[in-house]
Amino acid sequence: MKHPCGIRKNESKSVTYSNRGMGLEHDINLSNEYYLIQDKAVIHKKPTPITIVKVDYPSRLEAVIKEAYFKTPSTTDYNGIYKGKYIDFEAKETKNKDFFPLRNIHIHQIEHLRKVVNQGGIAFLIISFTSTGQLYLLKAEDLLEFIQKNTRKSIPISYFETHGYSIKYTYNPRIDYLKIVDHIYGGDV
Amino acid sequence: MKHPCGIRKNESKSVTYSNRGMGLEHDINLSNEYYLIQDKAVIHKKPTPITIVKVDYPSRLEAVIKEAYFKTPSTTDYNGIYKGKYIDFEAKETKNKDFFPLRNIHIHQIEHLRKVVNQGGIAFLIISFTSTGQLYLLKAEDLLEFIQKNTRKSIPISYFETHGYSIKYTYNPRIDYLKIVDHIYGGDV
Repeated sequence: MKHPCGIRKNESKSVTYSNRGMGLEHDINLSNEYYLIQDKAVIHKKPTPITIVKVDYPSRLEAVIKEAYFKTPSTTDYNGIYKGKYIDFEAKETKNKDFFPLRNIHIHQIEHLRKVVNQGGIAFLIISFTSTGQLYLLKAEDLLEFIQKNTRKSIPISYFETHGYSIKYTYNPRIDYLKIVDHIYGGDV
Repeated sequence: MKHPCGIRKNESKSVTYSNRGMGLEHDINLSNEYYLIQDKAVIHKKPTPITIVKVDYPSRLEAVIKEAYFKTPSTTDYNGIYKGKYIDFEAKETKNKDFFPLRNIHIHQIEHLRKVVNQGGIAFLIISFTSTGQLYLLKAEDLLEFIQKNTRKSIPISYFETHGYSIKYTYNPRIDYLKIVDHIYGGDV
């Protein structure tokens, strides 16, 4: 995995990273900020998991990471607390209109969702179908049932229509997924 | 914050990063792994928050982060679920025998703990006094009360003795902090 710096230098290309994860991630982060400011919930995106190999200290106060690698995530991206309850979810975008490819979710993340459900937590996916603008919340229980009963490598849109919950975009918060959580779990949350 | 690569090159020194965060962090990670395998709790350390500036792709399958910076954490390092309840804590080591310096905890982290308590979560610190081998769990409520009532910039060991809970090292899990959580929150957890 380690990159022998210099050898492939001419082949490599650099990209700026600043626009990565806009769209759904950005909207959810803004919604979480809204919930936080309103004292409604404390839900954060976890930092991207990386392995740091080399850090430079050009001055006493400054540290620059000069070599690091992305790690496969072992948990989901978002977790936190809402009305005393543990909340845990993964958010993904797809350009496909008719299905959501399961390869977008790592096996470790599915196992993590299963463990959270077993511990009594509230776990789900938020899937954005970017070409149609449709947005669904799918309970982890329904994701796990789909995987158990199917050998398909993607979840068809019809499964979201029958088992998922459509989320409408609103002004503030942009994606009010806790409204759906209230609806699903009712008085328990 | 950005580092104009090359200008300070001769001044900079590189360090390997692999041994950072051993000790307390290592023991807690092992304990969390034990809890996970035993289906007792799902608690993970969050990745280190960084800002990624430049990524190289020497091949299609490989991404190397070539420039990134550490960010001030806005939350604590550990969170998860135990018996349906949201758990959130920060773990810190100090070499001091008689006090724990509060500068080791960022103001954002203290605010985060306050918000978690307000949402009904279980929040605390685990502090390791490495020169004496003493280990304490201090509830976030007691940390917040100390800060409110004192202008001191450190918490004396006597406060841990009177308000905290001593944790004994055990074989497996190495640091059985959920035993203390059970003791404190009793039938609620």
